[in-house]
Amino acid sequence: MSHLLSDCPLCHDPVHGAPEAGVQLLLQRPRYRVVRVLDAAFPAFYRVIWQDHVAEFSDLLPQDRLACMEAVTAVERVLRVQLQPTKVNLASLGNVVPHLHWHVIARFDWDSHFPAPIWAAPLRAAEVERLDLLVGKLPALDHAVLAALLGLPE
Amino acid sequence: MSHLLSDCPLCHDPVHGAPEAGVQLLLQRPRYRVVRVLDAAFPAFYRVIWQDHVAEFSDLLPQDRLACMEAVTAVERVLRVQLQPTKVNLASLGNVVPHLHWHVIARFDWDSHFPAPIWAAPLRAAEVERLDLLVGKLPALDHAVLAALLGLPE
Repeated sequence: MSHLLSDCPLCHDPVHGAPEAGVQLLLQRPRYRVVRVLDAAFPAFYRVIWQDHVAEFSDLLPQDRLACMEAVTAVERVLRVQLQPTKVNLASLGNVVPHLHWHVIARFDWDSHFPAPIWAAPLRAAEVERLDLLVGKLPALDHAVLAALLGLPE
Repeated sequence: MSHLLSDCPLCHDPVHGAPEAGVQLLLQRPRYRVVRVLDAAFPAFYRVIWQDHVAEFSDLLPQDRLACMEAVTAVERVLRVQLQPTKVNLASLGNVVPHLHWHVIARFDWDSHFPAPIWAAPLRAAEVERLDLLVGKLPALDHAVLAALLGLPE
């Protein structure tokens, strides 16, 4: 790997850029890694993290933008097939950690924030039973996400 | 055009899908249109709106995903060159209007929400003088965005 910053929390492993705290690593690839975010309110929340330290999507070469978005798309598609979410939310923000990473989040009309973005104020209490059901699907979901990603070129 | 929904606010023109209220139209193309969002707190805020009514990014064909993200990237690049923002934020949410559209937003460390997402609660009052300076750059910015988009294949 090249282009890692010692003070960036998404660059901290000099070999592969190990995942930060609060996530479950699913897959390391040469160009990106994919983690599931351990978020109690939004359990079906994945992140595609570019390995090199680049701040913005437009810092990538065209073939890398394509690979990055194909990974994002693969995750989105698995969320749709496995969970039938009300909507999938995609975002590359990076205001706090300006190292390119894409959020891929399954949203449900019953979740605590819907239809507001997850970063807005909650609109209602979380429905614990529905969240528990969703959490129960995570092992199969992780497996399906991994399988889909492994079907993509590196 | 095909695949338009009569009750979708992003589909309401049966010919091209005219832009919704609160935006300035910059460019209509066969597959997408680009508007600038008239947001007083975030003046450098563009939106790439897919013309066909599809809800999710993964509904697009591979070549359409590429064209869509190349438009998003072109806008992002112009924002960076013209404004040197602290960060660019990209997002496809669509919880309220589930018709594929990408937000491309220049963020500044002095803006009312930074580093929070624009959908979160504000962290400070807007700096009117800096916002005014930014608003003064919008005509040149629109021109540069348009030129960059016209350099892409349709």
